[in-house]
Amino acid sequence: MDQLRFDGRVAVVTGAGGGLGKAYALLLGSRGAKVVVNDLGGSRDGSGKSNFADAVVQEIKAKGGEAVADYNSVVEGDKIIKTALDNYGRIDILINNAGILRDRSFQKMSEQDWDLIQAVHVKGAFKTTHAAWATFKAQKFGRVIMTSSNSGLFGNFGQANYSAAKMALVGFMNTLALEGEKYNILINTIVPTAASRLTEDILPPEMFQAMKPELIAPVVAYMSHESFTDSALVIDSTLGFATKTHLVRSLGAPLRKKPTDEVTLESVKEAWPQVVDMSKTKRFDRMPEVTVDLVGRIQDFEHRSKLDSTHPSYWSTYNYNSKDLICYALGVGASVVNPGDLRFLYEAHENFNALPTYFILPGMSMESPVVANAMPPGKHADFTNILHGEQFIEFLGEFPGTEGSFTTRNYVAEVLDKGSSAIAIVNSEIYQNKELIIRTQQHIFVVGQGGFGGPRDSKVAVGVQPAPKRKPDAVVEQRTSEDQAALYRLSGDLNPLHIDNNVAVASGHPKPILHGLASLGFSVRHVIAKFAGNNSSNVKALKARFAKPVLPGQTLITEMWQEGNRVHFQTKVKETGNVVIAGAYVDLKNVVKDSGSASSAQSSQSSGSLKSDSLFAKIESEVKANADKAKSVGAIYLYNITKDGKTVKQWTLELKGTPGVYQGQPKSGKADTTMTVSDDDLVDIAAGTLNPQAAFMKGKLKISGNIMLAQKLGPLLKTGAKL
Amino acid sequence: MDQLRFDGRVAVVTGAGGGLGKAYALLLGSRGAKVVVNDLGGSRDGSGKSNFADAVVQEIKAKGGEAVADYNSVVEGDKIIKTALDNYGRIDILINNAGILRDRSFQKMSEQDWDLIQAVHVKGAFKTTHAAWATFKAQKFGRVIMTSSNSGLFGNFGQANYSAAKMALVGFMNTLALEGEKYNILINTIVPTAASRLTEDILPPEMFQAMKPELIAPVVAYMSHESFTDSALVIDSTLGFATKTHLVRSLGAPLRKKPTDEVTLESVKEAWPQVVDMSKTKRFDRMPEVTVDLVGRIQDFEHRSKLDSTHPSYWSTYNYNSKDLICYALGVGASVVNPGDLRFLYEAHENFNALPTYFILPGMSMESPVVANAMPPGKHADFTNILHGEQFIEFLGEFPGTEGSFTTRNYVAEVLDKGSSAIAIVNSEIYQNKELIIRTQQHIFVVGQGGFGGPRDSKVAVGVQPAPKRKPDAVVEQRTSEDQAALYRLSGDLNPLHIDNNVAVASGHPKPILHGLASLGFSVRHVIAKFAGNNSSNVKALKARFAKPVLPGQTLITEMWQEGNRVHFQTKVKETGNVVIAGAYVDLKNVVKDSGSASSAQSSQSSGSLKSDSLFAKIESEVKANADKAKSVGAIYLYNITKDGKTVKQWTLELKGTPGVYQGQPKSGKADTTMTVSDDDLVDIAAGTLNPQAAFMKGKLKISGNIMLAQKLGPLLKTGAKL
Repeated sequence: MDQLRFDGRVAVVTGAGGGLGKAYALLLGSRGAKVVVNDLGGSRDGSGKSNFADAVVQEIKAKGGEAVADYNSVVEGDKIIKTALDNYGRIDILINNAGILRDRSFQKMSEQDWDLIQAVHVKGAFKTTHAAWATFKAQKFGRVIMTSSNSGLFGNFGQANYSAAKMALVGFMNTLALEGEKYNILINTIVPTAASRLTEDILPPEMFQAMKPELIAPVVAYMSHESFTDSALVIDSTLGFATKTHLVRSLGAPLRKKPTDEVTLESVKEAWPQVVDMSKTKRFDRMPEVTVDLVGRIQDFEHRSKLDSTHPSYWSTYNYNSKDLICYALGVGASVVNPGDLRFLYEAHENFNALPTYFILPGMSMESPVVANAMPPGKHADFTNILHGEQFIEFLGEFPGTEGSFTTRNYVAEVLDKGSSAIAIVNSEIYQNKELIIRTQQHIFVVGQGGFGGPRDSKVAVGVQPAPKRKPDAVVEQRTSEDQAALYRLSGDLNPLHIDNNVAVASGHPKPILHGLASLGFSVRHVIAKFAGNNSSNVKALKARFAKPVLPGQTLITEMWQEGNRVHFQTKVKETGNVVIAGAYVDLKNVVKDSGSASSAQSSQSSGSLKSDSLFAKIESEVKANADKAKSVGAIYLYNITKDGKTVKQWTLELKGTPGVYQGQPKSGKADTTMTVSDDDLVDIAAGTLNPQAAFMKGKLKISGNIMLAQKLGPLLKTGAKL
Repeated sequence: MDQLRFDGRVAVVTGAGGGLGKAYALLLGSRGAKVVVNDLGGSRDGSGKSNFADAVVQEIKAKGGEAVADYNSVVEGDKIIKTALDNYGRIDILINNAGILRDRSFQKMSEQDWDLIQAVHVKGAFKTTHAAWATFKAQKFGRVIMTSSNSGLFGNFGQANYSAAKMALVGFMNTLALEGEKYNILINTIVPTAASRLTEDILPPEMFQAMKPELIAPVVAYMSHESFTDSALVIDSTLGFATKTHLVRSLGAPLRKKPTDEVTLESVKEAWPQVVDMSKTKRFDRMPEVTVDLVGRIQDFEHRSKLDSTHPSYWSTYNYNSKDLICYALGVGASVVNPGDLRFLYEAHENFNALPTYFILPGMSMESPVVANAMPPGKHADFTNILHGEQFIEFLGEFPGTEGSFTTRNYVAEVLDKGSSAIAIVNSEIYQNKELIIRTQQHIFVVGQGGFGGPRDSKVAVGVQPAPKRKPDAVVEQRTSEDQAALYRLSGDLNPLHIDNNVAVASGHPKPILHGLASLGFSVRHVIAKFAGNNSSNVKALKARFAKPVLPGQTLITEMWQEGNRVHFQTKVKETGNVVIAGAYVDLKNVVKDSGSASSAQSSQSSGSLKSDSLFAKIESEVKANADKAKSVGAIYLYNITKDGKTVKQWTLELKGTPGVYQGQPKSGKADTTMTVSDDDLVDIAAGTLNPQAAFMKGKLKISGNIMLAQKLGPLLKTGAKL
C-alpha cells in the first residue's frame, strides 16, 4: 500500500506536549503535515506551566518535519487557530485532544470542579473548531477529531463532570458532521485509552506499560487523512485494537392497547418489557429516519387497531431462505429422481423456485392464541383438541422470491357450530414490504366443542369443490417415505403427534401420522407438474380438505381433472383406498400440459439504484484502465443481482474481445459463468466482510456454468474492495 | 393493576410552567405527590417573565393536590431544591426538564449562544441534582430524570450548542447512575418529542396536534416511581410510543497482523472494514466489562498469533441447534424405522443427542483458504482439484450438547508429496467456551499437484488401521436414498458435485455422488448401534479413509470387528462390491454390545446459580401462599433447565398431595410432565417476551409425558411474569 501522506496539510493538535497529543503531532509531522503543537503545559489537574510543546516541535524538526509551538489555552482556542493561519496560511486538520481531570465523588464535587472540566473539554473544543470552521468551509476541506472517553459512554465513579463533558463532544460532533457534510468537513471521535500523563496513575502498571500512545496515533491520523470518508464515527482504540460504537434503538412498543385508549402509568408499566427489549434493535443514522420509522409504526398501529376492532388479530413475522425451501421440497416428496423437481432442490438451478404450498406455512402462525381466544364461553381450544380440517391459499401479487420476510396477520373470522364440534375459520394475511401478497384460510376443527348455538355455515369460508364424476384426466402415484413426517417436521410443525409413538397412540393412531400439509404438498406438486408447466408462479389459488390421516410410508395417488383454468384433484392412499384429501382444486393462471420438459423462464425486473451499482461502476473503470489484463481472462460473466430472492438487475462482465462492463445480459455470445447473489451480499463480499468462498458454501453466492472461471474473478472483486 | 401512587413523595419539576413540564407536574400531583412547580417563565429563547407556575399550582390544588410555585433559574438550581425542602421537608423526585433553544448555523453561532445553552441545560441539571444529592443519599431514595433530545443522539442542523448539551446529560447520567446505585438513587433520561412551547414552531401542524405532552408524562412518571428499578436508561417517547436507545460496540479488529508488528496508518486502513463492521455487535453496560472484553480479545490475538507463527490458521465460528442435528441425522440415514434412531430424530426424546460424526462439520471450515495458501510454489489447490481423502475426529472433553457454538482453528499441518498428487494434512481445533473439546484432521488430496520434492510421509497424520483378517463380528446393511445427497447438502456442503448432473459428469461421475462424510455417518451410526449402546458420548475418536465414491440409492454394507475398545470397520457398496470406506475404526470408552434396547441415561450436572433460580423461588412462594389451589392441579412437573443444550439443573413442581417446589427429581413418584428448556428461554417465557406456545412450536420448550397437563401450568408461569 502506498504511504498515506499529509504533505501540504496543516494540522493543529491541542494538548500535544506529551502523551497522546504528542504521538499525534509526531506522526502527522513525520508524514509531511505542518503541525501546530499546542500545549498549555499543565499537569494533570490543569495547574502549572511547562515548555513541553517546544520539545515536541524540536523532535518533529529533527526528523525533517515542520512544526510550531503554541502555548494558548484551548479556552482561547481561536488564538491557537490563529497560530496556524499566521504561520502556515491554512488549517486542514484539528485534533481536539487537550484535557484535564478533576475527579471527585459527586457529593464532594465543587462548582469549580464542574465548570473547569466543561470549560477545557467542551468550550475548548467549541472555540478551536468554531475558529477553524470558516476556513474549512471556504477550502471545502476539514478533518476534526473530538476526544471522548469510556467514562462518558459508560459512566465512571468520581467523574460526573468528565462524563458529561466527554459525551457533550459526541453530541457536538453529531451536529457538526451534518453541517460539515457538503463542505467535505468530517468530524469523528476517538475514545482512547493510552498511557499518558492523564492515565499514568489510574491504570494497573502492566497494562499501562503496553498502552502506548503510538498504538492509537495511527487511528487518529487515518481518520484525519484526506482519503478518509466517514463522519460522525465514535472509534475506541487502545493496545492496537479498535472498535466502533454507535446507538441502536429497540423496536419499542405502543403504550396503550388501542390508539383511542389513554396512556396511563399503568399502561406504560404493562408495555415496559417490550419498550426495553433490546433483542431486536434498529440503527438510525439521522433524525429524519427516526421520524419516518415512527410515522410508519404509528400508521401500522392504527391500521392494526382498526383490523383488531372487528377481529382480534395476532401478528407475527416469518423469514425464509433457499435452504428452507429445499428442506420443505424434500419434506413433500420432491426428488432428484424426477428431473423436473430439481428446480425445487438445487439453489443454483436456473429456475430455482419455491413450491406454492410452501407459502401456506407463514400463514400457519402456530403459536397464535386467536383460536383459543375466539371460543365461546364454556368452550375451549388448545392443541390437544384441534385438527387441521381445510386449507386455502391465494396469491394476490407476484409470486414470492426464493428468500424473504413476511409479516402475517392471523385472526378468526368466524366460529361455526357443527353440533358436536366447532370449526374456527382462521384467516391469515401475509404482507411483504407492507403489501398484502398472500391470503390463507384454515378451517380448524375443535373436537367436542360445538353445541353453543352458533351459526352452522359461513359466508367468509372458502368451500371445497366436488371433483367431476368422470375418470381423472391425470393420475400421479408416489410413495411417501417412512421418514416423511420426521423430515417434514423440519419445516416447522413440531407437533409430537408426527414423531412420538405415545402421543400418536393416545390420539387413536397406530403410529405417528404424516402432516396433512405434507400430503397436500405432494399432491399440488403432482398438479403443477401435470398442468402448470411445473411453474409455481402459475398458481393463483388452491383449496383442500383433509379427510383422513396418512401414515408415513403409505403411497399417495393424486387424481386430477382439468376444467378450464381449474384443476380439481383428490388424493387417495393406495394401500387402503381411503380418500385423504377431498374436494380440492388448484386455480392456475395458464394451463400448461405436461410435455416432459417444463420450463419457466424467470423475468428479471430492473429496479432503481442498488448498492452494488457503484461496485460495478468501479469495476468498469478498472476494466477500462486495464483492458489488456481484463481481456486475458477470456470469459463472459453474468451477475444476477437479487432482492428478496428475485433477480432485479443483471450485469455482464465481458472479459474477452473488447472488454466491457454493462447492465443486462451479454450483448454478444452467452455467459460462461453466471453468478447469482443478493445486492447486500455482493457489497459485503466487495467490502471484504464476506468471504466469497464462504458465501458460495453457504448458498449466498450461487454459481452456474463454468465454476472454475469464477475463481479468476477473485482479484477483480478485491479491486472492488477499495470502494 | 393497582394505581401507581406517589403519596408522601415530593417532586421538583423544572420548566413546569407549560408543555411537558406542566404535564409532568399535573400527573404527579394527581397521583399524590407534592410538587414544586419551577418555571422561570421565559419564552422560547429564555427571555421574559411570566407567572405560568402559579397557574399550574392552582390547577393541581383545584384537583385536590398539593403544590408550590418556584421562580428561580435552574442555573441557581440549589434554590429550587431549597423550595422543596423548606416547604415539604424532603425531595424524592427531580425532573430536570427546563430548557431553551438558541438555534444558529455553526458559523453564525456566537459564544453567548453556546454558553447560554450549556448553562441552562447542563449547569442547570448539575445545580439541581447536586443540591438534592445529599438528601437522596441520606434517605436512600431518589429518582432523577434528565431530558435529552434526538438532536443530541443524531445531530441536527443549527443545534451544535443544543446537541452538545443534550448528550452531556446522558454522560452525566451514566456516572450518576453508578454513584447512586447503592443508595437507590436511579437516574434515567427521557428523549421527548412533544407539542410544547419549544416545538410549536418546529413541527408540521398535523403531527403537532397529536403530540400531546400527556402522552409522554406517564412514561416520565413511571420512571420516577418507587417501583421502578432501572437506571441509566435512555427512553425516547412521543405519540404514545416508547423505545429504548443504547450503545453497542462492533467486535472490532486488531490493527496489525501480529502483536509484534507496528501499528501504522496503512495497517489501520487495512483493518478498517472490520473495525467499523456493525453486523455483529456487543452491548456493554459498564466500563469494566469493556476492559475485560478487551483483555480477552488481546489474549486471543496473542494466542492465535503464536499458533499462526508455526502454521497460518483460519478461525471461524459455528453454531448449531437441535434442528441441525435432526437434519443431519436424516442426512446420514437415521430413520424412525429403527426405534434406536429416534433419539437422533426427536428433540424431545429423553436421550436426544447428536451423532458423533456431526461434530466433524465444525472442523470442515470449507471456506478456509489454508489449503490453497499452503501449496508449494507452482502448485495450486482450489475446490475443483481437491478430494476429501481421510477424516479423523477425537473428543477431548465432555461430549457436546444438543445446541451450542464453537470457535474453530483450522490449519495445514503438513503438505505431503505423493508423486503425482499432493496431500494436505488439515487439522482443526474446536473450542467451546475457550476450552479445546474436539480435534479433527482431514487428508485433502490435491490432484495432480505433487512432484515438488516434499516429504512423502507424515508424523502428525493419524493413520488408518487395517481391518482384521477374520470374518466381521457384525454387519449392517442399509440402502441410501436417491435423495440422500440432496438431503445431506442441507447440513452445509453445497458443492454442486452432489446435486448438479453437469458438474458430476464433468468430474467423471455418471451422476451426482454422495458426500463421503454422509457415507461415514451411516457407518458410524451402525457401529455405535452395535457396540456403543447407541450412545454417542461413548465415542472417543474415529478415523476413516474414503476409498471410492458412493452414488445415492446404492446400498451400504458396514462390516465391523471389535478389538478391545476399538471397533474396526469398512464399508462396501452392495451393488458393486467396492470398498468405499477403508481402514476405519471407532475408539470407544466402553463397549456395549447391541442388546436391542440400548439406552443411555444422561446425567444432569448441577451448575451454580442460574437466571431461572429466582423464578422458581417466586413460584415456590406462590405455591406456598396458595397451597390449596396448587394441590388442585394434581400433577408433578419436572423442569430440565439447560445450558448449551445440556441439562444443568432440575426443578420439581409437586402440585399434588403436599405441594412443594424443589430442586432435583420428584421425591415421591414420577413426573407426569417433563419440560426441557434453556435457562435463558425460561426467563424469557416468564418475562412475557417469549410466548410458551411459540417456544414449544419452535422446539425451544420440549415437553414429554402428559402434554395436556402442561397447559395447566399457564397461570403459574404468568405469575412468574411478575418477576
